Amino acid sequence: MKHRLLSICIATALAGNHALAQGVVEDFKTTPTTQQGKQYPQVNSEGRVRVSVLAPQAKMVQIDIGAKKYDLVKDTAGVWTGESAPQDVGFHYYQLNVDGASVPDPTSLYFYGASRWGSGIEIPAQDSAFFALKNVPHGQLNEQFYFSKASNSVRRAYIYTPPGYNKDVNKKYPVLYLQHGMGENETGWGNQGHAGWIMDNLIAEGKAAPFIIVMENSSINFGPGGPRGMRPPAPPPAGNTAQPAAGAAPRSAGGPPAGMNFAAEFQKVLFGDLIPYIESNFRVMADPAHRAMAGLSMGGMQTRSIVIDSPEKFAYVGMFSSGTFTPTEITNLDAFKKQGKLVFMSFGSREGGAARIPEAAEAWNKIGIKGVSYVSPETAHEWHTWRRSLYQFAPLIFKN
Amino acid sequence: MKHRLLSICIATALAGNHALAQGVVEDFKTTPTTQQGKQYPQVNSEGRVRVSVLAPQAKMVQIDIGAKKYDLVKDTAGVWTGESAPQDVGFHYYQLNVDGASVPDPTSLYFYGASRWGSGIEIPAQDSAFFALKNVPHGQLNEQFYFSKASNSVRRAYIYTPPGYNKDVNKKYPVLYLQHGMGENETGWGNQGHAGWIMDNLIAEGKAAPFIIVMENSSINFGPGGPRGMRPPAPPPAGNTAQPAAGAAPRSAGGPPAGMNFAAEFQKVLFGDLIPYIESNFRVMADPAHRAMAGLSMGGMQTRSIVIDSPEKFAYVGMFSSGTFTPTEITNLDAFKKQGKLVFMSFGSREGGAARIPEAAEAWNKIGIKGVSYVSPETAHEWHTWRRSLYQFAPLIFKN
Repeated sequence: MKHRLLSICIATALAGNHALAQGVVEDFKTTPTTQQGKQYPQVNSEGRVRVSVLAPQAKMVQIDIGAKKYDLVKDTAGVWTGESAPQDVGFHYYQLNVDGASVPDPTSLYFYGASRWGSGIEIPAQDSAFFALKNVPHGQLNEQFYFSKASNSVRRAYIYTPPGYNKDVNKKYPVLYLQHGMGENETGWGNQGHAGWIMDNLIAEGKAAPFIIVMENSSINFGPGGPRGMRPPAPPPAGNTAQPAAGAAPRSAGGPPAGMNFAAEFQKVLFGDLIPYIESNFRVMADPAHRAMAGLSMGGMQTRSIVIDSPEKFAYVGMFSSGTFTPTEITNLDAFKKQGKLVFMSFGSREGGAARIPEAAEAWNKIGIKGVSYVSPETAHEWHTWRRSLYQFAPLIFKN
Repeated sequence: MKHRLLSICIATALAGNHALAQGVVEDFKTTPTTQQGKQYPQVNSEGRVRVSVLAPQAKMVQIDIGAKKYDLVKDTAGVWTGESAPQDVGFHYYQLNVDGASVPDPTSLYFYGASRWGSGIEIPAQDSAFFALKNVPHGQLNEQFYFSKASNSVRRAYIYTPPGYNKDVNKKYPVLYLQHGMGENETGWGNQGHAGWIMDNLIAEGKAAPFIIVMENSSINFGPGGPRGMRPPAPPPAGNTAQPAAGAAPRSAGGPPAGMNFAAEFQKVLFGDLIPYIESNFRVMADPAHRAMAGLSMGGMQTRSIVIDSPEKFAYVGMFSSGTFTPTEITNLDAFKKQGKLVFMSFGSREGGAARIPEAAEAWNKIGIKGVSYVSPETAHEWHTWRRSLYQFAPLIFKN
């Protein structure tokens, strides 16, 4: 406390150009999601996000984050600066509002979420090391286009191949199919999820077996949606995309889970085109015992739906912030038991579902398939929960 | 002319929601750089760019493209819409201006140029097919991190491997080292350059030999600068980045070419770390006869500088919008003659340098090394010039 007060005093003495909000700790620094060479956005030790933008003729400028808007303050040069309330550690989508226009922060990096490319901010966590870029052997994140008969289009997948994949050309690898959440796409796990760095670090420490990860787009009307996306324009998706959202609500009240509607469509692509493409173009162990599927939010619900439909095709199942999954949901349970080894369920501690997963995991243990539940401390329905979930899940799969 | 007038009349009758600028052809459509599911930005057959943004409280909103700003018009719902003058075909950086704030267009895709991530727009060209996403066998664009002793950091390269690279694991490939321009980075050739699709299409048509392309960052203070970039913040680069620029001026008056200052730094990374990494981690033909280097603008000047310094290391040289290169610039010309096969120089027809390259090419022909010059019709110092240059250059290299 004394230290924190001292920090405030020193920073107040040093700061010159803008009004300081009362009680804000003045230890702001740029963050990994700040564009290279830019001074903002910054984050302080409380998790506040400070942004700064030149807008001399504007009447009001705000930062819009965590479903709240915070006013910035204009200086004599026309530069607006200000900060949000403290945010949870990890990754959050956000935007600026300039006289009513919701726009990306011009000095942040951009990520795909809430059905659009926009600003994202990283609030450094105590446990940032597990997904940090380190001097270890690195795998590759491959952008791969391939033709899908099911969608009658050329589609994009991102494929993580582990360190050594290009060198030891006789080795074959197991495969994890890993899905994003609603409003996100095939870039999410690589960009904001840092799946590649999580795996590089786990493999370097001998904590996980090297395996391939395949990341595709399981939203309706999908197609390559990134900077290299080159597809006919689609109609606007249902639902307002004006507000940034962290993933999507896991279940809509009263109806079936939203992700369930997409699962049947994606399943056609997955079984008809994607898995065959991967198994004939990459050096993979092409049997169900060496195949896993996992996803976050909608992607986890799709995973459950696909495994319920085709229990004979997967040995490992991961559902991150996607509800529960129990043996009674699979009609032909014997088909899953043949090669099924693990059902993993996770939630952030600030999500409602966290309390229900230990019991669901125990139901799997009772029938002889390993059930694991994991709760991410002090995180909500956001990417830090899902990064931690992958970090917990990856060491448990393909150990034989 | 009659047809165009008719188009205007029909469009005027159909359009409802915003004032139409006089003489603007109303055949606007979304473009490949419009975000998936969004209605704007659009481009018409004249090459005008129309944007639209909700900004109810704003006093003035503009589109800022090609170093000019164009006013948008507000409708009763607070939506500002309007268009630029006709632009050249191909790719251009742009931004919006909302009451003095220069911000990305919230519904465009984002690209790295002018030392920042921001909006880009594709003006469809008659010759768009050569870089289009087609149903042909596709190579991969690999994001690869590796440690560089020269820069004492983990760096990012993008590596294009041709179709079949993963299947025919006994085959070795030649390598092209391909550099971006000033204010751009290692993502440029893959994103706005579409280098992967250009190569996929050339290879599918049997017009180019399959080869590997390595794309790194040759700007000062460089490091992984993209969405996955995770490096300590660097000071702002010299030069104002407030205005979007297409690459950079090829030569600053009076002084040495700007790119020359960076070439020595990048050369250490290239020869000390990057080439050794590629040659020990990918299946490449690791001799100078199967090594090419090329670049656009600053990247082409770096190419020249590096080849002048180490003429024994490359067989093929490409300079796109980078000035001229003649045999007299190499002191040890015999070292280059040993394996040197091609010097290729190009410019857009709207660039000053176009007139000087045929003579420089002829100087190479005279000493027994093939010299080729190419002028891109009706383009300036922009990506469409460089896409076309790669399309011309690629079939000429590694033919033996």
